[in-house]
Amino acid sequence: MKKKITIAIDAMGGENSPKKNIEGLNIFLKKNLNNNDFFIKLFGNETILKKHLLDFNIKSENIEIVHTDSVISDEESPLTAIKNSKNTSMWNSIKSQVDGESDISLSAGNTGVLFVISKMILKMMNDVSRPALAGLWPSKKGMSVVLDLGANIECDEKNLIDFSEMGAALFKSIFPKQKPHVALLNIGSEEIKGTEILKKTYSKLKELNSEDNFIFNGYIEGDQIMNGDSNVIVTDGFTGNIALKTAEGTAKFVVDSLKRSLTENLFSRLSILFSYFPLKKFKLKLDPRKYNGAIFLGLNGPVVKSHGGTDAVGFYHSIDLCYRIIKGNLMEEIKTNLSHLNVGEKTN
Amino acid sequence: MKKKITIAIDAMGGENSPKKNIEGLNIFLKKNLNNNDFFIKLFGNETILKKHLLDFNIKSENIEIVHTDSVISDEESPLTAIKNSKNTSMWNSIKSQVDGESDISLSAGNTGVLFVISKMILKMMNDVSRPALAGLWPSKKGMSVVLDLGANIECDEKNLIDFSEMGAALFKSIFPKQKPHVALLNIGSEEIKGTEILKKTYSKLKELNSEDNFIFNGYIEGDQIMNGDSNVIVTDGFTGNIALKTAEGTAKFVVDSLKRSLTENLFSRLSILFSYFPLKKFKLKLDPRKYNGAIFLGLNGPVVKSHGGTDAVGFYHSIDLCYRIIKGNLMEEIKTNLSHLNVGEKTN
Repeated sequence: MKKKITIAIDAMGGENSPKKNIEGLNIFLKKNLNNNDFFIKLFGNETILKKHLLDFNIKSENIEIVHTDSVISDEESPLTAIKNSKNTSMWNSIKSQVDGESDISLSAGNTGVLFVISKMILKMMNDVSRPALAGLWPSKKGMSVVLDLGANIECDEKNLIDFSEMGAALFKSIFPKQKPHVALLNIGSEEIKGTEILKKTYSKLKELNSEDNFIFNGYIEGDQIMNGDSNVIVTDGFTGNIALKTAEGTAKFVVDSLKRSLTENLFSRLSILFSYFPLKKFKLKLDPRKYNGAIFLGLNGPVVKSHGGTDAVGFYHSIDLCYRIIKGNLMEEIKTNLSHLNVGEKTN
Repeated sequence: MKKKITIAIDAMGGENSPKKNIEGLNIFLKKNLNNNDFFIKLFGNETILKKHLLDFNIKSENIEIVHTDSVISDEESPLTAIKNSKNTSMWNSIKSQVDGESDISLSAGNTGVLFVISKMILKMMNDVSRPALAGLWPSKKGMSVVLDLGANIECDEKNLIDFSEMGAALFKSIFPKQKPHVALLNIGSEEIKGTEILKKTYSKLKELNSEDNFIFNGYIEGDQIMNGDSNVIVTDGFTGNIALKTAEGTAKFVVDSLKRSLTENLFSRLSILFSYFPLKKFKLKLDPRKYNGAIFLGLNGPVVKSHGGTDAVGFYHSIDLCYRIIKGNLMEEIKTNLSHLNVGEKTN
């Protein structure tokens, strides 16, 4: 029998936890009634979790509660986290990966602390220069992977090349039927544009370009992130974070402007009645909850960070992401991709 | 009599020139029928320009054609531009500033060449470490100034401080009734976040914060660019260019998704009839032509770059921007602001 995909969930992290976490799990279970290839470990207060499971009438043999007394507060600083977070639901869920009891962990709790203790508990993979935070980004052709989104504010070419290999591996694991097309984010598409670090990364990625590995599309500019021609977009954590937040702010600004135009007088409010279904469809298409879940890559085990403020639907999408990542053999894909780098180094 | 605001227009630059340039001028003239405080110098082929002025029935004593035979091609490289661009419409329009014949120049031609020859002809202001490219950005409260948008891919604290002073001066000149609120773009709003350069800039801007000069709002993240609390947003040219393009791409993606949802079947297409006016208003509000015109700051005279692909309405907005910049005494404002820096250095 094949080993089950085991997801360790910090059930106590994020706003409205553990209610939203359990409600999200409930959505996941309902969507996977015909699948029996997963197992969920819920880390948190057993009494509270049992009550919530009961509220949603969840009775699955694919769930286990692992009791932990304490929870990491949102105010905890990453600097003191190691001392104060031992035996919390977050700590123990990550720890379960090292103990071979789970394949991936998911938390909607304190981001800074999650990264610090993930790094400490799981440790960095051999041959990875730095871990990176990857996210899903909507595009005209589906979804893309963008990294780094803020784990490293300054990066050299070795980091950016690692991010490309890990990002391509992540893309393959989540979308096994598609090919990864890597692009470097820059301020022009000509080969001579950009910083020295970008130029060096460009040359190396051109060498690494291959059908088995990834297609390298060269540089793209910010306005091409969402056209879908490239689906693995690589940048340093400073630029990636600014781009992500700017895109979020812009989408909100545009949608808010639309809302204001559609509700500012009686006539326009009436008109919404007629556009109700198309507008609902539009809203669904852009629903940020579908992209909820940033993936911490480069450690000896993947960690997914759900947005703290998301709801049950958003949390469900993060659980689903964990499931797909492991089903798609992320860790193996990363190891294979990183081995290209080593081969390259040896023959050079 | 007060000296007239004199705008030197490269009438031959950009797609569909000079037709769109003259048509844009026509819009400007119609909107300023009651103003007599401006003078337009049109640089380009006299015969062609005369014909177009006639086509739009433009007869104004506030316009003069300055004949030039040649035009800079869009394919011209900035590297060979100096040799090949002498006596073109672009060159001569900028040159007229040095000769005291105009206050500002505007071109929709080759961007790279425009920057190189502007720098060469106008030269950098005393006390400015580097020139910057500033743009207008829509916000919930109106418009903001964002700089640098790509003139400098790497910046130190001195550059960023100069950009803050010049950006605040630009904001004051365009929006004389509002106060500039400067913010530094970063990946977190806490004082300890970001690169060393940003931290040093932060400390210095905190010192420069004053009612006469500008209010310093500290760091903002990408999703706050458009909330309008800060209206002068400062960053290096790499980050600024990525943020600008990402915002453009995101707005396009959202609007395209909306369009698709509203036109994908007969029912949804019918619904547009009812939402026609609110949707039109929404479109107008976000019209990128209203923000057309990037301002090259830090030289001994301002140069405005219109988007090459814009139409007559977009070009009109660039002419209007030139008019407002000079009416608002941009150069004086910049000099006053830069003097704060010098005072600070002397007393420190």
